[in-house]
Amino acid sequence: MIEPFDDIYFMKRALQEAEAAFEKGEVPVGAVVVIDNKIIARGHNLTETLNDVTAHAEMQAITAAANYLGGKYLMNCALYVTLEPCQMCAGALNWSQISKIVFGARDEQRGCINLKTKLHPKTIISGGVLQEEASRLLKRFFVERRNLN
Amino acid sequence: MIEPFDDIYFMKRALQEAEAAFEKGEVPVGAVVVIDNKIIARGHNLTETLNDVTAHAEMQAITAAANYLGGKYLMNCALYVTLEPCQMCAGALNWSQISKIVFGARDEQRGCINLKTKLHPKTIISGGVLQEEASRLLKRFFVERRNLN
Repeated sequence: MIEPFDDIYFMKRALQEAEAAFEKGEVPVGAVVVIDNKIIARGHNLTETLNDVTAHAEMQAITAAANYLGGKYLMNCALYVTLEPCQMCAGALNWSQISKIVFGARDEQRGCINLKTKLHPKTIISGGVLQEEASRLLKRFFVERRNLN
Repeated sequence: MIEPFDDIYFMKRALQEAEAAFEKGEVPVGAVVVIDNKIIARGHNLTETLNDVTAHAEMQAITAAANYLGGKYLMNCALYVTLEPCQMCAGALNWSQISKIVFGARDEQRGCINLKTKLHPKTIISGGVLQEEASRLLKRFFVERRNLN
């Protein structure tokens, strides 16, 4: 069966990125940027590998997408990310003027919704897509890390 | 006369970075990161040069400082930046657990204070240091750009 290009399809690709982060011992969050049903950028959390708090999945994906497009604005793009963006990433998405943000799991404490980070007026944000898969991976990561210490 | 290592001294260094941005046709904002009265990182806005909305002065300086320190946290560091940080940069500074943020000019519309971006509880933020110099440079940039168009 051919998979349709819908939110679930692209979130599955973001989850693959999150799994790649997991394999590297990184908090497993992944993201893809899509334009016209085509993935133009991928990213996963690399804060430990790069020793850099700015190296979130979304930041990598925003930079890679702008690089692909040859321009810094992502007006016709959608970002799929497995965890609700933090203030930093939502702030970057605000500057990018992205059209659509779809996230998986909520982040009540550090996510942009409860912290009321301002997004561009043209940006539509929604969440909950494959949230259980995203949460399960995050929980597994933190359980395994606890057991290692 | 030997200049003392105070907020004005370090903000002058951040202003030099802002001037470097100006010379490249970038919105002139500069930043330095200081630890024990020593500048360990510098950055200036490169969003046009790199085609990347994430390439703010503070982001470059945070990444460079972490690289210098070999760790991602900037707990004993101070950041001097010529313009009040935006949500993205304040969000990154929150993750970095930086001790002190000193900015020059206020950014009422897009700055982290009015937008209520959450900072780390241990971070002290203050502003207004050499604000006139920082504002003058920004105004000159926007006047010159307007005249070019």
